[in-house]
Amino acid sequence: MKDKEELMVEKETARIEAFSDGVFAIAMTLLVLELRVPELGEAVVPSVLAAKLMAQWPVYIAFVISFFSIFIMWVNHHKLFKQIYRRNTGIMFANGLILFLVCCVSYPSSLLAGFYDTDSQQLVISIYTGMFVLVNLSYNLLWFLACRDRKLLRPGLTEAAILGIRNNYLYGLPTYIAAFILSFYFPVSALLICVLLWIYWAISSKKVLINR
Amino acid sequence: MKDKEELMVEKETARIEAFSDGVFAIAMTLLVLELRVPELGEAVVPSVLAAKLMAQWPVYIAFVISFFSIFIMWVNHHKLFKQIYRRNTGIMFANGLILFLVCCVSYPSSLLAGFYDTDSQQLVISIYTGMFVLVNLSYNLLWFLACRDRKLLRPGLTEAAILGIRNNYLYGLPTYIAAFILSFYFPVSALLICVLLWIYWAISSKKVLINR
Amino acid sequence: MKDKEELMVEKETARIEAFSDGVFAIAMTLLVLELRVPELGEAVVPSVLAAKLMAQWPVYIAFVISFFSIFIMWVNHHKLFKQIYRRNTGIMFANGLILFLVCCVSYPSSLLAGFYDTDSQQLVISIYTGMFVLVNLSYNLLWFLACRDRKLLRPGLTEAAILGIRNNYLYGLPTYIAAFILSFYFPVSALLICVLLWIYWAISSKKVLINR
Amino acid sequence: MKDKEELMVEKETARIEAFSDGVFAIAMTLLVLELRVPELGEAVVPSVLAAKLMAQWPVYIAFVISFFSIFIMWVNHHKLFKQIYRRNTGIMFANGLILFLVCCVSYPSSLLAGFYDTDSQQLVISIYTGMFVLVNLSYNLLWFLACRDRKLLRPGLTEAAILGIRNNYLYGLPTYIAAFILSFYFPVSALLICVLLWIYWAISSKKVLINR
Repeated sequence: MKDKEELMVEKETARIEAFSDGVFAIAMTLLVLELRVPELGEAVVPSVLAAKLMAQWPVYIAFVISFFSIFIMWVNHHKLFKQIYRRNTGIMFANGLILFLVCCVSYPSSLLAGFYDTDSQQLVISIYTGMFVLVNLSYNLLWFLACRDRKLLRPGLTEAAILGIRNNYLYGLPTYIAAFILSFYFPVSALLICVLLWIYWAISSKKVLINR
Repeated sequence: MKDKEELMVEKETARIEAFSDGVFAIAMTLLVLELRVPELGEAVVPSVLAAKLMAQWPVYIAFVISFFSIFIMWVNHHKLFKQIYRRNTGIMFANGLILFLVCCVSYPSSLLAGFYDTDSQQLVISIYTGMFVLVNLSYNLLWFLACRDRKLLRPGLTEAAILGIRNNYLYGLPTYIAAFILSFYFPVSALLICVLLWIYWAISSKKVLINR
Repeated sequence: MKDKEELMVEKETARIEAFSDGVFAIAMTLLVLELRVPELGEAVVPSVLAAKLMAQWPVYIAFVISFFSIFIMWVNHHKLFKQIYRRNTGIMFANGLILFLVCCVSYPSSLLAGFYDTDSQQLVISIYTGMFVLVNLSYNLLWFLACRDRKLLRPGLTEAAILGIRNNYLYGLPTYIAAFILSFYFPVSALLICVLLWIYWAISSKKVLINR
Repeated sequence: MKDKEELMVEKETARIEAFSDGVFAIAMTLLVLELRVPELGEAVVPSVLAAKLMAQWPVYIAFVISFFSIFIMWVNHHKLFKQIYRRNTGIMFANGLILFLVCCVSYPSSLLAGFYDTDSQQLVISIYTGMFVLVNLSYNLLWFLACRDRKLLRPGLTEAAILGIRNNYLYGLPTYIAAFILSFYFPVSALLICVLLWIYWAISSKKVLINR
């Protein structure tokens, strides 16, 4: 009977994971709609088309950055939910908040792509980095709520692993806030910090997997 | 042999759940397409862009409200289908009706966002609240059909739990209808009642989970 | 060892089903993008907005019809794959063809919505009904390929059930072809036949489930 | 205890597969948004509408080609992940790269559809074939990373099968590169080579399944 119970527990978060995966997958895929085919007459010279395509470089960069930022969010979501076996209302809505922000990402990303090359560069970078402060807060909230009631977590999870995960996300917060503040003065550097943070996260994810 | 049979029963609604999750996830994610990047020349002054973005506030509010209304619909769908183990044609099509309405939500939501600030405010709020009367009816229909044949439900489900779920949805109906009628005279209050109902639902969902 | 093998067999089509569910769910949900918010100035009188919305009735009808036609296609896909336990290249590509047509449905549906009220009514209805001849052919192909090698089917499936499923789809073919031919002379009747066929299918699906 | 461990191993890549399926399914379904309803007045003569629809043939062809190219990518993804039971950071990000390219496919495909009939034909075909060089590289990278650590692979997988899969993908690389180079001189032939390669792949997939 215990075994079956365990199986039921597993199932409790399985549907949340599957649903969340759907949202992550769609949010990532919808980003491609930002890449627009230039509207040109039929007699277009190839060199003009090539020039038009190249002039869209901020759109391409924003696409790549946003795709992989959502992807890394998914990897982290995946990792957190490997440790969460049961759910309560708090978990449901903290996860809802994460999904909401995942859906939003494409909008600041579009703004960034559309206005990076204009006088409004600083404004759109501030919005973009501000967005990721919220994303980080939502992940911290999810883990905070999951840790408050240890019955929600995977049975064998050690205290050290719980703290390790908490720190991994908590340490991101000041960096994101710093990037947000910096964005008002040195917007491009602020953006760079975010990208570096994602690369660090991608590599550090290895460590967390071993800690497991 | 019994065990395998039980496994097969479980699987019967598993694919319906997975498919429904897909529809919910996409409907929620597509909402972001309503957030449009302002079309401005390259020499745009940051303050003008900021003003343009802020002028879109009804779009943002409609996005947030619609996202979480679909999310709460998903939470409820999730909860109902935890109790439904087998399906018949009625369940299939009542679920189809729910999914249809889930897909529709973005349209009244776009109308609301587009005309909230105009003379047509009352009209679009009436359409919006009327929509949720239909949503509530479809959930009541699903549970009504599921209860009619107890073999469809989770084996151990008590009579009290079945009634508890029924009442939870049935009591929503008069409130939604009241909001719909009110929308013709006091549109903003009607909208507020819907939002309050969702918040109540989100919190009360805890109770239902305990009842289980 | 046998048990594990059986589990592996089950898994073989499980991912195809999940993937197909994704395509069905998205195709259904994308239909809502056809519902467009009327472009009107801010000083719009409510009666003008209401009139504009009502003038879109072919769009609404096309949305409802297309949504439920894809939904019924999903129900049937669901039912067929309940009986298919293993897959070969033929099954993979017959399924790929079905998914392709599922994705396509929204296009003839848009044409129907856009030109139903014009002189081109007959043309768009012919395209629409012609589309469903192809859909029917693809389902027949899938079941034909699945039946050719009984090792692909669910172990306990009786010969009578196999034939019952085959006939259910095969009998649809002449009706669809008749509707397609009729569409050149009496377009509205042809459309009606398709809708009636779907309703019949929806109801008859009960029978097939019992046959199982 | 061994059995449960095995079950956990299985689950490790299950969520990656489900998530990837979502991205594949959406990328395929979004392609239909390229098919646009012609904007015509209400008094449109059927023959004009028919002519307009037929003039869109490069769009239809691009839709079919792109749909099935993503579908074949999915079939191959499916096949590779049947053999991958565990994951590490490398696998996660190689898979992320594949998903990124899957999302991208619709863009070169739109360019191809939009400019096939213009003077820029060569340019868009070069972009399109170049895209598939990258796709092939990402699949080779995934399998390379999976093979480097045999603990990631399905326990019973033979050395011959591992090599067979590797060769199947590796041999595609020079063909794609040849097609890319050829596209600068004989664009249509280059496109044809890609299509033939996909057909070969679709048929040869049978062999690989037997090798399993």
